[in-house]
Amino acid sequence: MSEQLEGKQCILSALRARQRRFELLLVSYSTHRDKTQEVIDLANQLGVPVKLVPPDELDKMSIGKTHAGLIAIASHKPLTKPSDLLQIIRKRSGPPFLLLLEGIEDEQNLGFIIRSAGAMGVDAVLLKKHIWDFNPLAVSRASFGVYEWMPLVKIEKESEIIGDLKKAGLKLLGALPRVKRTMYDMDFAQSVIVALGGEKRGLSGALRETCDRFFTIPMVMAENQQIPSLSLSHSAAIVMAEAMRQRRQAGNSDLMIQQMSLMALP
Amino acid sequence: MSEQLEGKQCILSALRARQRRFELLLVSYSTHRDKTQEVIDLANQLGVPVKLVPPDELDKMSIGKTHAGLIAIASHKPLTKPSDLLQIIRKRSGPPFLLLLEGIEDEQNLGFIIRSAGAMGVDAVLLKKHIWDFNPLAVSRASFGVYEWMPLVKIEKESEIIGDLKKAGLKLLGALPRVKRTMYDMDFAQSVIVALGGEKRGLSGALRETCDRFFTIPMVMAENQQIPSLSLSHSAAIVMAEAMRQRRQAGNSDLMIQQMSLMALP
Repeated sequence: MSEQLEGKQCILSALRARQRRFELLLVSYSTHRDKTQEVIDLANQLGVPVKLVPPDELDKMSIGKTHAGLIAIASHKPLTKPSDLLQIIRKRSGPPFLLLLEGIEDEQNLGFIIRSAGAMGVDAVLLKKHIWDFNPLAVSRASFGVYEWMPLVKIEKESEIIGDLKKAGLKLLGALPRVKRTMYDMDFAQSVIVALGGEKRGLSGALRETCDRFFTIPMVMAENQQIPSLSLSHSAAIVMAEAMRQRRQAGNSDLMIQQMSLMALP
Repeated sequence: MSEQLEGKQCILSALRARQRRFELLLVSYSTHRDKTQEVIDLANQLGVPVKLVPPDELDKMSIGKTHAGLIAIASHKPLTKPSDLLQIIRKRSGPPFLLLLEGIEDEQNLGFIIRSAGAMGVDAVLLKKHIWDFNPLAVSRASFGVYEWMPLVKIEKESEIIGDLKKAGLKLLGALPRVKRTMYDMDFAQSVIVALGGEKRGLSGALRETCDRFFTIPMVMAENQQIPSLSLSHSAAIVMAEAMRQRRQAGNSDLMIQQMSLMALP
């Protein structure tokens, strides 16, 4: 039941996150130490066995294409239990900011959204009706390693956890096309769960019934052109950035402003 | 020198945009008319010959995988000349909004960014140091057809067109990591060119020297985690959405507000 992690970004994030148990780190002895030393040091520090191997051994093992001299064998990244999610929310100093995704079937898109969520201060990602046998390595790579530390909660039925989150004071705000209010009419600075559905079907009826409010992303329609649209991961990025803008402006999260990085493009 | 377009979205957008000359539209006679009628009607209206063919003929011709019963043969989408770009800007009722992309080597990312640009009211996309032998079909598909109508300008050297655009009153605002000002400190409601560089190298030195101001996208750094980052296409979506927010608020573009669609997810 172990998984194989490949590449520096993935393995480094996973080691730092301490959510997986590491069995072994394999390092190609032909790869320059500049590229691997940081990972080896952290593995040593955490007591993970490190083995130097010939490069072709890694090439043979590699599932992705760009292991870049590093492959690790580790346990699965555990899902966060609903009860633990409630703990995370209680411990948080400011109002929580959760993201709920429904009907995402594409690993790359899931990874992209998790990466943006990590940069926009999301506390946890809730996944509903997702294909659960996705390749975690593909998600982790597309997420630039954020998958390794971001709490992920699997939702079977909205009723369970959503009810508890609402009791804890969170509002469920759902993105929908063709609704009156835009994301600029929402108060994202309060305790919120932002819900987004897949590109084809959007949010399900069951989830819509649970939402407190709906909003749309305003778009410009060029003359005589098609109806404008955004991909799901780009919609998600725009909504999360607007939520962060409002949260910064409200100044209700000292921690967040302190931790604000000035990085834009990596 | 003709190109093959596949799928309803691409072909419909290309027919509407009238930038390509169409030689022929091939329609599978086994595909349901509901799926193809709109395309056939527009082709007839524009005098494009339509030919009904057996489905396996399209399967054999198809380069992408999902022609969905429609393949068209058409001329290349023409690039917009710098002189024509200046015309577009002069004709525009409000302050122009241009996007400049440098060093993008991935067709999908280019397509994603063009799609978002179409939805966020960008007037034209300027491309610098791009690999020019990209597969236009892949870009068009990823752009959801926006590639077909969005003016695209190829830049060889900044000096030429950027100088003319600056003379016309446009400010060049460049995205960079680790700069003091954020995108919220920028005035995107004026006449602007927003410049973004590739994920690996960012904006080139030559382009940086031409920029009037720099800005960064604020991000949140989670405790003990890696430096947060966004992919290029998601950075672009967030910046363009912020520009549109400011432009709406400034109300300096009547046309834009009139044309505002309420669509969010397609």
